[in-house]
Amino acid sequence: MKQHLHSLAPTWEVAQWFNTEQPLSLESLRGKVIVVEAFQMLCPGCVLHGLPQAARVRQAFSPVQVEVLGLHTVFEHHEAMTPTSLQAFLHEYRIGFPVGVDQPDGRGGPPRTMQAYGMRGTPTLLIIDGHGRLRHHHFGQIADLSLGAEIAELILESKSFSGQDVSP
Amino acid sequence: MKQHLHSLAPTWEVAQWFNTEQPLSLESLRGKVIVVEAFQMLCPGCVLHGLPQAARVRQAFSPVQVEVLGLHTVFEHHEAMTPTSLQAFLHEYRIGFPVGVDQPDGRGGPPRTMQAYGMRGTPTLLIIDGHGRLRHHHFGQIADLSLGAEIAELILESKSFSGQDVSP
Amino acid sequence: MKQHLHSLAPTWEVAQWFNTEQPLSLESLRGKVIVVEAFQMLCPGCVLHGLPQAARVRQAFSPVQVEVLGLHTVFEHHEAMTPTSLQAFLHEYRIGFPVGVDQPDGRGGPPRTMQAYGMRGTPTLLIIDGHGRLRHHHFGQIADLSLGAEIAELILESKSFSGQDVSP
Amino acid sequence: MKQHLHSLAPTWEVAQWFNTEQPLSLESLRGKVIVVEAFQMLCPGCVLHGLPQAARVRQAFSPVQVEVLGLHTVFEHHEAMTPTSLQAFLHEYRIGFPVGVDQPDGRGGPPRTMQAYGMRGTPTLLIIDGHGRLRHHHFGQIADLSLGAEIAELILESKSFSGQDVSP
Repeated sequence: MKQHLHSLAPTWEVAQWFNTEQPLSLESLRGKVIVVEAFQMLCPGCVLHGLPQAARVRQAFSPVQVEVLGLHTVFEHHEAMTPTSLQAFLHEYRIGFPVGVDQPDGRGGPPRTMQAYGMRGTPTLLIIDGHGRLRHHHFGQIADLSLGAEIAELILESKSFSGQDVSP
Repeated sequence: MKQHLHSLAPTWEVAQWFNTEQPLSLESLRGKVIVVEAFQMLCPGCVLHGLPQAARVRQAFSPVQVEVLGLHTVFEHHEAMTPTSLQAFLHEYRIGFPVGVDQPDGRGGPPRTMQAYGMRGTPTLLIIDGHGRLRHHHFGQIADLSLGAEIAELILESKSFSGQDVSP
Repeated sequence: MKQHLHSLAPTWEVAQWFNTEQPLSLESLRGKVIVVEAFQMLCPGCVLHGLPQAARVRQAFSPVQVEVLGLHTVFEHHEAMTPTSLQAFLHEYRIGFPVGVDQPDGRGGPPRTMQAYGMRGTPTLLIIDGHGRLRHHHFGQIADLSLGAEIAELILESKSFSGQDVSP
Repeated sequence: MKQHLHSLAPTWEVAQWFNTEQPLSLESLRGKVIVVEAFQMLCPGCVLHGLPQAARVRQAFSPVQVEVLGLHTVFEHHEAMTPTSLQAFLHEYRIGFPVGVDQPDGRGGPPRTMQAYGMRGTPTLLIIDGHGRLRHHHFGQIADLSLGAEIAELILESKSFSGQDVSP
């Protein structure tokens, strides 16, 4: 994974989007810090930790500065985690941010975006800066204090690049 | 529901069992206190509270005296909570006690056992005594202290009926 | 400790009571199940687990059947856990049940009731039956399910001794 | 309080320090971001939330960049929260960061530093930047994500002022 850090983030290959009228892309979000929660709907660590944390990030930061989205990276139990099942899951767990279904590789392996980012499993949290560069890649749990710090640092960078004032 | 309390518990109509080689029935468990956790795999209250509590009950009491089992009572999102999906869910959440799939009614309504017990939703916890009588019916959350007390009372009843000593 | 179980519980030697107009004694509570939470106000395990659990017991059971009380068994930092400090602590933590100050031994050792019961530390939970006999002695944490079961069993015993009906 | 933000933080008036050989001062910590947890040892919100959060801050950030310290601002139950009691409390709760005892005003009111900062109660969290200016003043609870962001922003400011690289 390390080789990807600070280089341009790979394109998202998404079969289907939920909770958004327009497909999202790295280009359409340029200028914002992007927090991507890669998860599987039947992964307990995602349900108990990753997804609630993503929802907290969405509450704590301005949507003008930070975009939170989910990526459903199904690499096991494919028949149990179909888009139909995902839709019911998002409804029941009241997940309101956009969620993309990572494009299957067609051979039962990890889906395409998961492969492109070299993810080891779920939950994985990716943080992309305002220039579209992958800056942080966390597999497993990360503490809220550290995550808040990482996001703030990238927000501040964006501000200084664009010549704005640093005060929130 | 009240009409059912202290009368014989309705028969379980189960389409398929997981985590058990033999189908379970009220008759085959006669003499034991039975704790039934009725749940749906995509119900957050079941995943966060009901099922972990059922697992704690299984740890806290002797399997000779108390049988814990799950009943998958799907009354919504049927296409997302199939037996195939349930199997993956039980594996991922490490649920080791027997789980029966409540028999669908064939018309998209609540499944048959759910109807027979007059359940209002999930999670629902049923407690059945050693004589096969439904003694407690809880919809929603119940505190561990109260649940422990209810189970102990029925264990003690069984012992006194059978002439055993009351000490654990 | 084991030698005390099922024998009459030792008398409480209490220097001062809080949250009760009358001093409490084993004799005055005969017929009830008594749950004694032995604690120190600066013991983290007592503050985080023992005392909240005692408060939950008080909520879960009828005060006619179960008496909950605290015993301040100071065996270290004596100068920091005086009755004056305890009073402020009980006020700030909203502890409403009766609390007795275990009588110091006058030589800086464990206080007298703590010694009489052979307690090893805090928190310790004692459960005394309606006949004044010590039935359970727990050092450290005990799960709510098990505690609820132990209390219910002693309530049921009291009822059957007195010829009452067993239904709650 | 607002009037204090962005102006130089008032001097700390401390009667006694724990967990440090040298008294700390704003001047001696110049260049670091300072996180001050103002608490009372018998304040439940401090024990359950404020102090554990301060300990997490100390874990999450480098001690070269962020100093965490406690300030014991006793404004009630003075006789129950003496320095002697505080010392036992710090020992029992394993609090390892420096803690200063806010200087009593001698008339039973809020202590001097508490007054100088216009604090309304406990827990209060103060964040002071590398130039000794008070930048954030939180009464009650603040989410870890937001706190992490506030601290990171001030660290980054310090770095850019001193001409260092922004990478952590």
